[in-house]
Amino acid sequence: MPESHPMIGGDGTYSYTKNSYLQREGIKYAKGLIDETIAHKLDIKDLLSNSRSFKIADLGCSVGPNTFICMESVIQAVKHKFQSHGLTEQIPDFQVFFSDHTFNDFNTLFRSLPPERPYFAAGVPGSFHGRLFPESSVHFVHSSHALHWISQVPKEILDKSSPAWNKGRIYYTGAPDEVGKAYAIQFAKDVEIFLDARAKELVVGGMMVLILPGIRNGISHSCAVVNVMLDLLGSCLMDMCKEGLVSEAQVDSFNLPMYVPSPKEMIELVERNGSFKIERMELFDPVPGNEAQILRSGHAWKMHFRAGLEGVFSKHFASETIDELFDRFPNKAAEKLKATSTETTLLFIALKRK
Amino acid sequence: MPESHPMIGGDGTYSYTKNSYLQREGIKYAKGLIDETIAHKLDIKDLLSNSRSFKIADLGCSVGPNTFICMESVIQAVKHKFQSHGLTEQIPDFQVFFSDHTFNDFNTLFRSLPPERPYFAAGVPGSFHGRLFPESSVHFVHSSHALHWISQVPKEILDKSSPAWNKGRIYYTGAPDEVGKAYAIQFAKDVEIFLDARAKELVVGGMMVLILPGIRNGISHSCAVVNVMLDLLGSCLMDMCKEGLVSEAQVDSFNLPMYVPSPKEMIELVERNGSFKIERMELFDPVPGNEAQILRSGHAWKMHFRAGLEGVFSKHFASETIDELFDRFPNKAAEKLKATSTETTLLFIALKRK
Repeated sequence: MPESHPMIGGDGTYSYTKNSYLQREGIKYAKGLIDETIAHKLDIKDLLSNSRSFKIADLGCSVGPNTFICMESVIQAVKHKFQSHGLTEQIPDFQVFFSDHTFNDFNTLFRSLPPERPYFAAGVPGSFHGRLFPESSVHFVHSSHALHWISQVPKEILDKSSPAWNKGRIYYTGAPDEVGKAYAIQFAKDVEIFLDARAKELVVGGMMVLILPGIRNGISHSCAVVNVMLDLLGSCLMDMCKEGLVSEAQVDSFNLPMYVPSPKEMIELVERNGSFKIERMELFDPVPGNEAQILRSGHAWKMHFRAGLEGVFSKHFASETIDELFDRFPNKAAEKLKATSTETTLLFIALKRK
Repeated sequence: MPESHPMIGGDGTYSYTKNSYLQREGIKYAKGLIDETIAHKLDIKDLLSNSRSFKIADLGCSVGPNTFICMESVIQAVKHKFQSHGLTEQIPDFQVFFSDHTFNDFNTLFRSLPPERPYFAAGVPGSFHGRLFPESSVHFVHSSHALHWISQVPKEILDKSSPAWNKGRIYYTGAPDEVGKAYAIQFAKDVEIFLDARAKELVVGGMMVLILPGIRNGISHSCAVVNVMLDLLGSCLMDMCKEGLVSEAQVDSFNLPMYVPSPKEMIELVERNGSFKIERMELFDPVPGNEAQILRSGHAWKMHFRAGLEGVFSKHFASETIDELFDRFPNKAAEKLKATSTETTLLFIALKRK
């Protein structure tokens, strides 16, 4: 069973609903890329030869509202394509499958569905590191800010006798090469399983759009601000360790299950799978010119991380430890941000099922 | 918007999960009828000409475990049909859509899905008194113990100036004819909307199996034990009213939104809709010979009702009133049961989309 770390549900202070600004900025920018992909690359006629409805899956949808914005945007683009081809009469019904881990808060998701939505909604519980849909039953897959979660922390990271033992850190930034490699290998395995499953589920000609944190080819992982911030979160934990607030063994046995790949790595994985044609791949900065104040604010990073990571931390640490950790983080983060490039890059990939 | 009254979620004392024995007995008996219907009436070849997967919807699924038992049973019967026709190689993937009101506890449903299930699971939030699925996208619809819920209490029931004003009661048993008629008309409207929606959603040749409380043609509504028990629940509330524990106006303005039809009524409604052929219709007694002790126990009826009805009561009455009501009910029920026929009849209907 892959590990499951849903975002914080409900709509409280630390909820994902209220703290997914950076993801939303990424989605806004990606909208243009998705629109173009649908306009230029999606073959609507062939696609619907065997179906009267167009089925879209959002993998790693969390609890909204981002997923609703994305799904409506995809549907508008597909409708527009029908219209621009003079096929307005043939616009199909749309069915959207909102999918996330079984422990995602689907009740909140369902209760916040837009009342006037241009689609039939369904929820699909389960890990995307495995099959979720029947064979050839989906026309369009969307996954935003999800695929960078790996299904498990690599075993050697936790093994004291391994050169990849990640002592005194909770992530691979600033760690020995072996640690980064172990993460990269796990990510590759997971993407392989992901692509295999989607290849079975997508109809021939069906498309998949992936958006995830990415890093430029050939640069160090420490150059991505998200990685720098995660490293800093680990160092706050080590400070607490030195003060006796948490044991060294507890920190050493905890690692964040995520990985930020480069375009080159993703191309290799897609080609190794062989079922998909890469229609477009690019890195983009969702908040260009570092305009967003959030990227300069330790508090904003705290809220961003807590909504997404508390689920992972809470399986390992007491809630007081987590509160203390996130209380310490903003000041240290603000200092670091003064001296760090805050370029955030997202990787956009559009694939077509061969 | 139709009213929404989900069963009690979670797995506490009064949860539907722990208090759906009678429904489960009905399902056990209906299994034989469903198996026969699939074996003799379902055209598997035609049905899958446009799809590689077989899609089943359970409407009014609540939170399990009944729905899991039903869905697995339907799938086994369909698989068996493929096998018996020498089509083992062509057995499709199955996708099950668990559907219920938006305020149903889907989190509990998803977290209790059988880990080794022979289908891909999805949840669909919304009222079945309206569209839930794309056009021609479902092959088999199942709905058990759900269609007797009407979408709203008829307005005239609450109108002091109407002959159908239901003063001093919470249900139509023992009420003037006008009350029963108003309920019957609302039920007919709802079933009309239900059948219209399903006619659009089911593929041609697709089948629908409905199981709901039913009453023999031509007999009084007061002859069904469930109706007698509901009437008694109302009289307990009136007792509390006389003791000043709840106001008369509060009781007069509350009515249970459900209706128990006869086979004759259902035949008329299906024929008026015109999209379905009736393949089988029968009344059956899920606990024949009154063997089940539950039907003689006031406490068992209390638990049965509370799991299903607390949602409705809680929108109108304070929780102390509901506690008091259900505390009073068992003794009075036990008395009544000594003198009442406890035959319970369920209506089974198998329809094929023309």
